[in-house]
Amino acid sequence: MDIRALLSGDVAALTEAIIACESVSGNEKALADAVESALQDLGGLSLHRDGDTIIARTETGAGQRIILAGHLDTVPLPSTPGSRGTVPPSWEQIDGEQVLYGRGATDMKGGVAVQLKLADDVAAHLAAGGSLDRDITWVFYDHEEVEASKSGLGRVMRSVPELLDGDFAVLLEPTHGVVEGGCNGTCRFEVTIPGVAAHSGRAWMGENAIHGAAGLLQVLSDYTPQTITVEGLDYREGLNAVRIRGGVAGNVIPDSTVVEINYRFAPDKTEEQAHAHVREVLAEAGISAGQQKVTDSSSAARPGLDHPAAQAFIAAVGGEPMPKYGWTDVARFSAQGVPAVNFGPGDPLLAHSDDEHVTAQALRDCHTALHRWLLGG
Amino acid sequence: MDIRALLSGDVAALTEAIIACESVSGNEKALADAVESALQDLGGLSLHRDGDTIIARTETGAGQRIILAGHLDTVPLPSTPGSRGTVPPSWEQIDGEQVLYGRGATDMKGGVAVQLKLADDVAAHLAAGGSLDRDITWVFYDHEEVEASKSGLGRVMRSVPELLDGDFAVLLEPTHGVVEGGCNGTCRFEVTIPGVAAHSGRAWMGENAIHGAAGLLQVLSDYTPQTITVEGLDYREGLNAVRIRGGVAGNVIPDSTVVEINYRFAPDKTEEQAHAHVREVLAEAGISAGQQKVTDSSSAARPGLDHPAAQAFIAAVGGEPMPKYGWTDVARFSAQGVPAVNFGPGDPLLAHSDDEHVTAQALRDCHTALHRWLLGG
Repeated sequence: MDIRALLSGDVAALTEAIIACESVSGNEKALADAVESALQDLGGLSLHRDGDTIIARTETGAGQRIILAGHLDTVPLPSTPGSRGTVPPSWEQIDGEQVLYGRGATDMKGGVAVQLKLADDVAAHLAAGGSLDRDITWVFYDHEEVEASKSGLGRVMRSVPELLDGDFAVLLEPTHGVVEGGCNGTCRFEVTIPGVAAHSGRAWMGENAIHGAAGLLQVLSDYTPQTITVEGLDYREGLNAVRIRGGVAGNVIPDSTVVEINYRFAPDKTEEQAHAHVREVLAEAGISAGQQKVTDSSSAARPGLDHPAAQAFIAAVGGEPMPKYGWTDVARFSAQGVPAVNFGPGDPLLAHSDDEHVTAQALRDCHTALHRWLLGG
Repeated sequence: MDIRALLSGDVAALTEAIIACESVSGNEKALADAVESALQDLGGLSLHRDGDTIIARTETGAGQRIILAGHLDTVPLPSTPGSRGTVPPSWEQIDGEQVLYGRGATDMKGGVAVQLKLADDVAAHLAAGGSLDRDITWVFYDHEEVEASKSGLGRVMRSVPELLDGDFAVLLEPTHGVVEGGCNGTCRFEVTIPGVAAHSGRAWMGENAIHGAAGLLQVLSDYTPQTITVEGLDYREGLNAVRIRGGVAGNVIPDSTVVEINYRFAPDKTEEQAHAHVREVLAEAGISAGQQKVTDSSSAARPGLDHPAAQAFIAAVGGEPMPKYGWTDVARFSAQGVPAVNFGPGDPLLAHSDDEHVTAQALRDCHTALHRWLLGG
């Protein structure tokens, strides 16, 4: 795939091309190759590649440095036949709006397209003899939509952290074009319900591990998630079974059911406090300590919108700041001491849905706002 | 694998060798090859192969014909670490008994070993100039432990039914060495619980299809199976979830959960009556007709122990007849007009368990009883 020619055109057409290059987590290589090649052709940027993570930096010697970051991967394609949020993408005209449907349309190939278009803008600005108030680092990374331990951003932060130094970071995750501060944390538990295998024609000799999951699923179904206010922003929590598997054959009483549970917690809690809460709910469902393990965990990030760099950014792009519900890598930047916010095109409520889409106008507006912030007028 | 040399020795050692040749449904070829080759070497038998089903027949012109049938396949190997009912098999000395552990030890490689040893006995008897009161057909078939539509026995019954003609059939399924009459029927339903996908950080935008399965699992967990008496034998029923799967990723609210349900029903019911009962239970759990489909179904078989051939067999091998709980291919033979019973070594309660085993004595006793029935003395 060659996207170089599209960088100087409409950011909506660029988004379409990027969606067309399927990049479900683990399959980012083709898209990473295209991004690397396009950035190389721009010239004037210092480039680094680590696996399928690409980092591009201006090195003009400006006193400050800002970071524009986004992930290249998406969740798997929708499993429901007829879903429009899939690959290849498609356009629809709705109430006079051009709407682009496709996996990643909101999370977050629109943001990646805006990042790339800004790189083209900046390269052209520098080539024309312009200067920068702040140097800029672009980060395009792999494996965001899976366990935190696989994250390309985390990998580079551990191996060459100096490449990600900066004074302020913007994650181009979908925020409907407003600034979203902080983020919920997330942790995953794997719960195993044991049973005793037997021939299903003599079920009374066994113990059914799928029936044994009824109580846990009922507790999760009855659970009422909280909304917690932190620094004036309201964070909605969620506790959900996200995967279940059990049984080995159509005529065997299942000896094991595994339920994967995801807790999204507000930034009033540490990871440890969040884990303790899940353990309480599991105890209520009669799940013992030996039946559960934490398989993934990432801290929440407090909003931090009182930081001067964040205030300046809000002033430049406008709008009323909101809380970020989903976990994003602003938490990683915060943990490294780099103030960070989310700001990107598309409705975050559509992320991961079978119906994922973004309007061409949202993509153009986001690009315009960031262009104004970086290069003025 | 070459089992020819073992046919004239101890049936327990022969069983061990047959277990050692793993033959989970779909993987029967190596064992079928070994059986075919051993039967060829015996001589005096007319052989037929259809896929991985082997049929061997004496053709002495005796007025009657009996059938000895058994399946070569097993359920998958146990998933619990440390299980002994696996491959390779192992021997243990328990209270002075030699006990053979391994997948298929009871269901039903012990029965297959007895069938093969009887073939060796009969071939030797004929080679020594002996005669037979009744011709004998041996059937070794594939794909018994999976959907009925894949059964090797069913395939041959459709394609060359004359090869399976006979006056009486014995299925060497495990019966603890007593005659078991008839069998429960079995049917499988696949139930789909729908949901609406969303990012798990914004769960309120979706509808959790795993939580949605709680009610169904609770109904199944609360269900009390019936015991139904048919022709003086008590048939225990069972209704169980045997497999469950749901969810696509660790951060997506699942849009679908699929539960596979197996109903084992007594021979007082037709398949249609059995399906109607499952539909009633599903309706109680709020499952609509559109969410369910029948994926597999096999009729029950009434005991039929009043048939003269069955009475003669019971008189020859002794013991008090019992009901068969599991579905077996006696139902297929009954449907073809061939009276059939189950009679084989091993405890049927251990079939498909992680701990499957059989005693050497049970194998030898079964062989002795059938040898006496077939060849006298």
